[in-house]
Amino acid sequence: MQNQATHPAGHGSERVFDLEQPRTSTMPIHPAHQPGYQYVLYRRHQDSFGQDGPRSGSSGMIVCMEHSGTHIDALCHQASDMMLCGGIAVDSQTQTPYGFTKHGVETIAPMVAPGVLLDLAAYHNLPALPPGYAVSAAELEACCAMQHLVIEPGNVVLVYTGNEQNWSDTTAYLAGPGMAADASRWLAKHKVLAVGADTMAWDVLGLRDPELGCTLPGHVILLVQHGIYIIENLRLSELAIAQAYRFTFVCTPLKFVGATGSPVRPIAIVR
Amino acid sequence: MQNQATHPAGHGSERVFDLEQPRTSTMPIHPAHQPGYQYVLYRRHQDSFGQDGPRSGSSGMIVCMEHSGTHIDALCHQASDMMLCGGIAVDSQTQTPYGFTKHGVETIAPMVAPGVLLDLAAYHNLPALPPGYAVSAAELEACCAMQHLVIEPGNVVLVYTGNEQNWSDTTAYLAGPGMAADASRWLAKHKVLAVGADTMAWDVLGLRDPELGCTLPGHVILLVQHGIYIIENLRLSELAIAQAYRFTFVCTPLKFVGATGSPVRPIAIVR
Amino acid sequence: MQNQATHPAGHGSERVFDLEQPRTSTMPIHPAHQPGYQYVLYRRHQDSFGQDGPRSGSSGMIVCMEHSGTHIDALCHQASDMMLCGGIAVDSQTQTPYGFTKHGVETIAPMVAPGVLLDLAAYHNLPALPPGYAVSAAELEACCAMQHLVIEPGNVVLVYTGNEQNWSDTTAYLAGPGMAADASRWLAKHKVLAVGADTMAWDVLGLRDPELGCTLPGHVILLVQHGIYIIENLRLSELAIAQAYRFTFVCTPLKFVGATGSPVRPIAIVR
Amino acid sequence: MQNQATHPAGHGSERVFDLEQPRTSTMPIHPAHQPGYQYVLYRRHQDSFGQDGPRSGSSGMIVCMEHSGTHIDALCHQASDMMLCGGIAVDSQTQTPYGFTKHGVETIAPMVAPGVLLDLAAYHNLPALPPGYAVSAAELEACCAMQHLVIEPGNVVLVYTGNEQNWSDTTAYLAGPGMAADASRWLAKHKVLAVGADTMAWDVLGLRDPELGCTLPGHVILLVQHGIYIIENLRLSELAIAQAYRFTFVCTPLKFVGATGSPVRPIAIVR
Repeated sequence: MQNQATHPAGHGSERVFDLEQPRTSTMPIHPAHQPGYQYVLYRRHQDSFGQDGPRSGSSGMIVCMEHSGTHIDALCHQASDMMLCGGIAVDSQTQTPYGFTKHGVETIAPMVAPGVLLDLAAYHNLPALPPGYAVSAAELEACCAMQHLVIEPGNVVLVYTGNEQNWSDTTAYLAGPGMAADASRWLAKHKVLAVGADTMAWDVLGLRDPELGCTLPGHVILLVQHGIYIIENLRLSELAIAQAYRFTFVCTPLKFVGATGSPVRPIAIVR
Repeated sequence: MQNQATHPAGHGSERVFDLEQPRTSTMPIHPAHQPGYQYVLYRRHQDSFGQDGPRSGSSGMIVCMEHSGTHIDALCHQASDMMLCGGIAVDSQTQTPYGFTKHGVETIAPMVAPGVLLDLAAYHNLPALPPGYAVSAAELEACCAMQHLVIEPGNVVLVYTGNEQNWSDTTAYLAGPGMAADASRWLAKHKVLAVGADTMAWDVLGLRDPELGCTLPGHVILLVQHGIYIIENLRLSELAIAQAYRFTFVCTPLKFVGATGSPVRPIAIVR
Repeated sequence: MQNQATHPAGHGSERVFDLEQPRTSTMPIHPAHQPGYQYVLYRRHQDSFGQDGPRSGSSGMIVCMEHSGTHIDALCHQASDMMLCGGIAVDSQTQTPYGFTKHGVETIAPMVAPGVLLDLAAYHNLPALPPGYAVSAAELEACCAMQHLVIEPGNVVLVYTGNEQNWSDTTAYLAGPGMAADASRWLAKHKVLAVGADTMAWDVLGLRDPELGCTLPGHVILLVQHGIYIIENLRLSELAIAQAYRFTFVCTPLKFVGATGSPVRPIAIVR
Repeated sequence: MQNQATHPAGHGSERVFDLEQPRTSTMPIHPAHQPGYQYVLYRRHQDSFGQDGPRSGSSGMIVCMEHSGTHIDALCHQASDMMLCGGIAVDSQTQTPYGFTKHGVETIAPMVAPGVLLDLAAYHNLPALPPGYAVSAAELEACCAMQHLVIEPGNVVLVYTGNEQNWSDTTAYLAGPGMAADASRWLAKHKVLAVGADTMAWDVLGLRDPELGCTLPGHVILLVQHGIYIIENLRLSELAIAQAYRFTFVCTPLKFVGATGSPVRPIAIVR
C-alpha cells in the first residue's frame, strides 16, 4: 500500500505541499452555496460479492456546488453590469441552464506557474488576522519586502491570513479576514495569473467598496476586469510554517464544461 | 483575459499536456455509474443584479459519480474476498453510508512522478486497437523496447490504445480494448505508482481471467494486491502524437473523504 | 403485512384506481428534464445493525426533476411573453434560484374533485392513437357524447389515448399523440380544474399552433391563460378497461415551495 | 387563477385538511437524513424566450432523502435482526444499491381509510407535550374515551402532540415528544393500517425500550412486527383546532420503486 498522505510526496529532492482542505459534509460553506457537499456510498462490496469470483466493487455519488471546499472561480462566475471579462455579455446565448458557453471553467488551462506565499499573519506577528480585517495593498507590498519577494507577471500569489485555523468552525471561518479592494488592484497591476487565500471569499464578506459600489470588489477587479482567477479555502499553514515562500504552483481545475468554477487540489512544489 | 486552453501552458520551456477529457452529461459512462454526471446552473447573474451595485454572481450544482469521466480509482474501490489492499476487511467499521474509513481517495498523496507513455496503437501500427482486444505483458514489454523506455519503480505508466477516438460514441468506447491480466501483473512487478489508459475500465470489460476467477482482473491485481492506482478515460492522443514518452506526471485527486475515487485532470509536463 | 398494491384498496364499497406510473431510472423522460430520476440506497441495514439491539434502518436519496414520471405542472411552469397566469411578470422577484415566489406548486390546493375519463382510443376503436396524432375539440365533444358525459366547471378531465402502452419504449412514448390547441381551448371554456393524459406533454410534441405562434399551445392556453393544471404521464388503462368514466379524482401535489411542478400519484375513486 | 391554498378545497359540502408541512431547505431534518432537501431552479423562462413564439418554460431539480418533511415509512425501512416484516431477510437479493426488491414504497397501496385524530395536547390541556415526553398506551386509550372515539381495524390513527409548533426551530422540533413502546403495541393490537404524528420520528428520539432492547421501538413494533406504516412530520393543528376527530384519510405515497419511504401530502376529508 502506498499511503503517503501524511508525507509530502515528491520526485527527487523536492517537497510537495498539498493545499486542499479535505472535503466533508461539515466543512464551511458560503451561504450562497448551501448545502455545499454531500457524498453517499450506495454501491457496496457485498452487493456484488459472489457474482464475479472473489472480486467486488464499491462506489458512490457526489452532490456538490462547484464553489465548495478548496476551489477556483472561473471567469463566468462574476459579472459587472451584466458583462463578463472581456466585454462578453451575459445573455441566453452565453448563460444557459447547463452552464456558460464562454469563460466556463474548462477554459482555464492547467496551471504550472511560479507561486509566492505572502504570510500576512507572520507579517502582523499574529496567529491569524482578526475577523473582518481587510488587508491593504500597502501591507501586501510590505510583506513582500519583509519576505524578500518580488511578484512577477504570471505568478500565482497566495495569501496566508491564519483564517485556516477556523476551518472547523463555520461561523468563525466565514467571519474571517479578507483583502481590501486596493490589495486586489495592486495584484492586478502585477499581472498575476491567479490569487488565493485561506478564506472563504478572498474579499471580506459584506464589505462594500465605495469606488466600485459593491461587495466582493476583488471578484470584480480580478475576475471581470483583469481575467485573474481566484482560489478560495486554501490550506496554507504548512507552507507558512515551512517558510516556503517560492514554489512551483500547480493547479488543475476539472473541465466541467460551462461551470463557474471547480473544486481543486492545488499543490506547491518546492525544490 | 487569460484563455490558454488551446495552448499548453507552462513554466519556462516546458510543455504541459492536459490528459483530462472534458466533462459533459453525454460523455461515456460505465453502466454501473449511470447516470454519471449532471451540471445545472441555478444561480444566474440576473438574480442578484441590481442588489450589489454593478456586481452579480452565478453558480451551479454538480451531481456525479466519482467514477465519471477521467478519474482515479482509490484502493477502497475494489476488494477480493471482501478484503481491501493490505488485508483490511470490508465491514461496518470500514464501509459506511458516507464512505470508507480506510483507503478513501483522500489517502492518495498528490502525484508528482516520472511518467511514461506506451503507445500500443503505434506499436501495432493502427489508429486504435480493436474492440475487446486484450493487451498482453509481452506487448507492453516489446513496446517499451521499441520506444526505448525502461519502467522504474514509482513510475506512472500510461497506455495509449487509440480508444480515445471513440469518446463521442459511448457504445464503441465501452466496447474498446483493455489490458489482459498478465499485463497488469507485469506492471505490478515493476512496482509502479499508478497506471492509466484511454479506456473506460483499464481491463477489457467482461473478460474473465481464469486464474483469478473474475472479470476486471487488473483491478484486483493492481488496487487490491499491490496498492497501485488506476486512472481511467485519459486523453492521451496529444502525448502520443508528440511522441512524448517520458514526462513528469502530475495528478491531484480531490480529497473527497471516504470516496472510492475522484475525477482528475492529470497533466504530463515535458521539459 | 399489508401488501395491497395489486388490489385496489378502498373504504367501504368503493374501488380506488392508482393513476401513477412506477418510478424507475429507465422511465421515459422528456429531453428537457434529463436525466430525470435517480434513487440510490446509501444507508444500509448492516451499517447500523448491532448498535441498537436488533433494530436497523435503511434509507436513500432521490435526485429528480419535478417533471419526471407522473407529475403535475404548476402555474409558474409556463409563461407567455414572460408573464405567468394572472399577469404576473417573470422577474428577479418572482423567479429565483430556489424557485418561484408566485404560483409555485405549493399554491395548488389538494384536489378532491369530480373527474371524467374520455377514452379517445375507444372512441376511435383503436388500442392507441397514432404517433403525433392531434386530438381535436370536436373529438373530445363527440367522445363525451358517446360516453354520455357532461363536463362541468371544476371537473378534472383525463384523456386516455392508449399511449400508455409505450411506457417501456421511451422513443415511442415521446412520439405519441397529444391534444390540438382547440381541444385545450374547448376544455378551458368548460372551466375545468385540471386536465391530464397518458402522454409526456399533453400537447403533441413539436407541433406548432399557428394562432398562438408556439409549440405546446395547450400549456399556454391552460396554465397561463386559464390557470388550469396539467397532469402528465398518467396511468389510465385500468380506468379505461373498467369503463369508469366518472369518479372522484384526488391528487395531492407535494408542496415543494417555489417548484414548477410535483411528482404525483393521483387516484380515481369510484363508488 | 385557482389559488386555493389557504382555503381548504372540497367537493360538495366536505372540508379538506392539508396535513403536509411545506417543503423548504430549512425545514427540520433528522440527522440521519441530512442534508434532507434541496430544490434548484436551473431552467429559466428567459433561457428559451424568443425561441418558441411567446411561450417559455422553467423547471428545476430536487435532491432529497425520502425521509424528509412529511413522509411515510415503507416496510423495508426498518429491520429486526436483519429481517424485514414477514420474515424477509435483508440480503443482496432484497437490498440493492438502487433500493429494495421487497417491501419498497411502491408496495403501499393508495390509502383511503377512516382516520381518527387523538389530540394528546388537548387531553393534557397543554399547547404541546413537553420535550422527550413519552405518550403511553393508557393515555391513548383515555384520549379516545375523552374524544368518544373507537379505533377499528384498518383505521389510520394520527396523534397530535403540539410539537408542530416547533417546526421552525429544528433543535426544539427534534427534541419533541413521542410515543412510548406500549402506545405502539396498543395501536398494533387494534390492527390499524397506519399511524402518524406531528413529530420527527413517532418514537421519542434516543429513548431505549428495555423489552425490545433498542431505540425507536415503535418502528420495530409497527413496521417490522405488524406491517403498519408510520407517517412523520404531519401538520395536524388545523384538524385539532377544528376538533375534526373522524375523517376520511387519504395518502398516496409516490411509487419510487425500491425506496424506503416517500414524501407525502396526506389529506383528511371531513364530511
